[in-house]
Amino acid sequence: MKTKQIILQARPVGKPTPDDFKIVEIDLPALQSGQLLLKGLYFSVDPYMRGRMNDAKSYTAPFKLNDAINGGVIAEVIESKSEKYSIGEIVVGALPWQVNCVITDDAALQKIDAKYEHPSYYLGALGMPGLTAYFGLLDIGKPKTGETVVVSGAAGAVGILVGQIAKINGCRVIGIAGTDEKAKELVETFGFNEVINYKTTTDLKAAILGTCPKGIDVYFDNVGGEISDAVIANINFNARIVLCGQIALYNNTEVSMGPRLQPILLTRSVLMQGFIVSNYADRFEEGTAKLKLWMDEGKMIYKETIENGFENLPKALIGLFEGKNTGKMIVRI
Amino acid sequence: MKTKQIILQARPVGKPTPDDFKIVEIDLPALQSGQLLLKGLYFSVDPYMRGRMNDAKSYTAPFKLNDAINGGVIAEVIESKSEKYSIGEIVVGALPWQVNCVITDDAALQKIDAKYEHPSYYLGALGMPGLTAYFGLLDIGKPKTGETVVVSGAAGAVGILVGQIAKINGCRVIGIAGTDEKAKELVETFGFNEVINYKTTTDLKAAILGTCPKGIDVYFDNVGGEISDAVIANINFNARIVLCGQIALYNNTEVSMGPRLQPILLTRSVLMQGFIVSNYADRFEEGTAKLKLWMDEGKMIYKETIENGFENLPKALIGLFEGKNTGKMIVRI
Repeated sequence: MKTKQIILQARPVGKPTPDDFKIVEIDLPALQSGQLLLKGLYFSVDPYMRGRMNDAKSYTAPFKLNDAINGGVIAEVIESKSEKYSIGEIVVGALPWQVNCVITDDAALQKIDAKYEHPSYYLGALGMPGLTAYFGLLDIGKPKTGETVVVSGAAGAVGILVGQIAKINGCRVIGIAGTDEKAKELVETFGFNEVINYKTTTDLKAAILGTCPKGIDVYFDNVGGEISDAVIANINFNARIVLCGQIALYNNTEVSMGPRLQPILLTRSVLMQGFIVSNYADRFEEGTAKLKLWMDEGKMIYKETIENGFENLPKALIGLFEGKNTGKMIVRI
Repeated sequence: MKTKQIILQARPVGKPTPDDFKIVEIDLPALQSGQLLLKGLYFSVDPYMRGRMNDAKSYTAPFKLNDAINGGVIAEVIESKSEKYSIGEIVVGALPWQVNCVITDDAALQKIDAKYEHPSYYLGALGMPGLTAYFGLLDIGKPKTGETVVVSGAAGAVGILVGQIAKINGCRVIGIAGTDEKAKELVETFGFNEVINYKTTTDLKAAILGTCPKGIDVYFDNVGGEISDAVIANINFNARIVLCGQIALYNNTEVSMGPRLQPILLTRSVLMQGFIVSNYADRFEEGTAKLKLWMDEGKMIYKETIENGFENLPKALIGLFEGKNTGKMIVRI
């Protein structure tokens, strides 16, 4: 059986381009005992994947050149030589960018309810972005009722959830996003108190001070760079800065320079903590259960930006760095 | 009764100069009921005092212009109209830079054993610097046996203790200091594994990597600036950075620029925590008892650089920024 695969053809310098990827046709091996044949339904593209395109030490191994990209995928079991899985079951896991793939049944797959209305949410609100928002905000940010929480990348897959979880915890929530449409939607649909459009704001530091008259107690940072400089200039004593992403810097080819932060962090007793959701692997069940409960109760809602067609995976990934998504960016095939 | 007082005559721009201070003669009021007349014995000069010379929001209030500087002082009770204190008792507290001063007996003074061999240690190893090293290293740094701890400002009042407490906890300890004499003494007398002289090292990043082949698990930062950039470039996954001081930056007149740290902190799950020893006020008794025990058992030793003469207080304070001290800088009168 033949299938399509997307490989990393070249390591990008700066922002990825379509030429860094290549669609190839490969032969799948015949199914052995204990193996499954899967068909991809929904593919996740995430900012952290940019780091894996470099050949650099980080928390996840780099993609190999001329090998399949891989990431979060929702797939259907279409053939099974395993007693653990039956045809028609839906699974989520880290899988290669292939229309079909063969894997062994001891891979880290999670079954999801085939009748669930939004299976792709297991790549978003009920998956890695959801758990990232949940543990990052609650375990590191520790928001208290009445505190002010600022979220950058507020309209992204994680940011949109961070704001809602902060509201559930009784906080004032200020988002930072890149278009007026996103800002409007975050306030009107997702309950953010105010949202700043950083692209049309000339004095970001003043704008943040204006929306956070009592200063900032928790900063959930998805973007880094000058946006973060402006937020941190307004940070409160004993504040917590959750370092979740630095999308503004991922495509840099040189080390980014900025004001040194240590004097502010020191004089205001601020905590800054880098984190990776896998640090919380032993508590994923707790996190998913809570997120599912909030979704089922209607306390939390989610949004996806869906591209159609396997061949559009590279375009969707590149789109993340152009702010093309609101909520989770997904490719459906 | 007349006494000498040192006032802040001008707010320094950049490094303080003797002209920013002025010695004046003042009249002391007659002693009222509940008051004490004190005579200063040992005066503390500390890097954090530089921040108080600015008119800026920080964790301690700015010194007032044309008002007495104040800081840690060991003093003797020479007259008492209080039932709580007797003549001849020795106290430590935050007191004005005056040869004599009158204060009420409800001020936050701590009595110290008048027979103790090193009363001035209550401004150092058994005082604020000791507690800073103790809580900063143990509560934030959380060093584990076998880990590598790097201390900048290693020969300073705090650094010299941090290294020894890290050794007590079974760590490999690398110091960074500014002269070969300090480096030699830290290794030979204070038990540091290796010490880098940052002034004679051309490639600091490489030197740190050379002395820390397994990377850095805890960085206790007293200095900031380029020294910290070089250390943090070699920081390990799940490392802890204790922000205690930024003496390299205190005299800057503009915001210091440097490489943005968030990408490293994020991809390596690093914690960076600014702290102020007063955050631990409710545990000072525990800290002092432990430090005293280590000193009494000979597990920890201390060193002071002592200047003589009240009029040399400004010079001693300025000397901190020139690295003139090993251990605690004290002025004895």
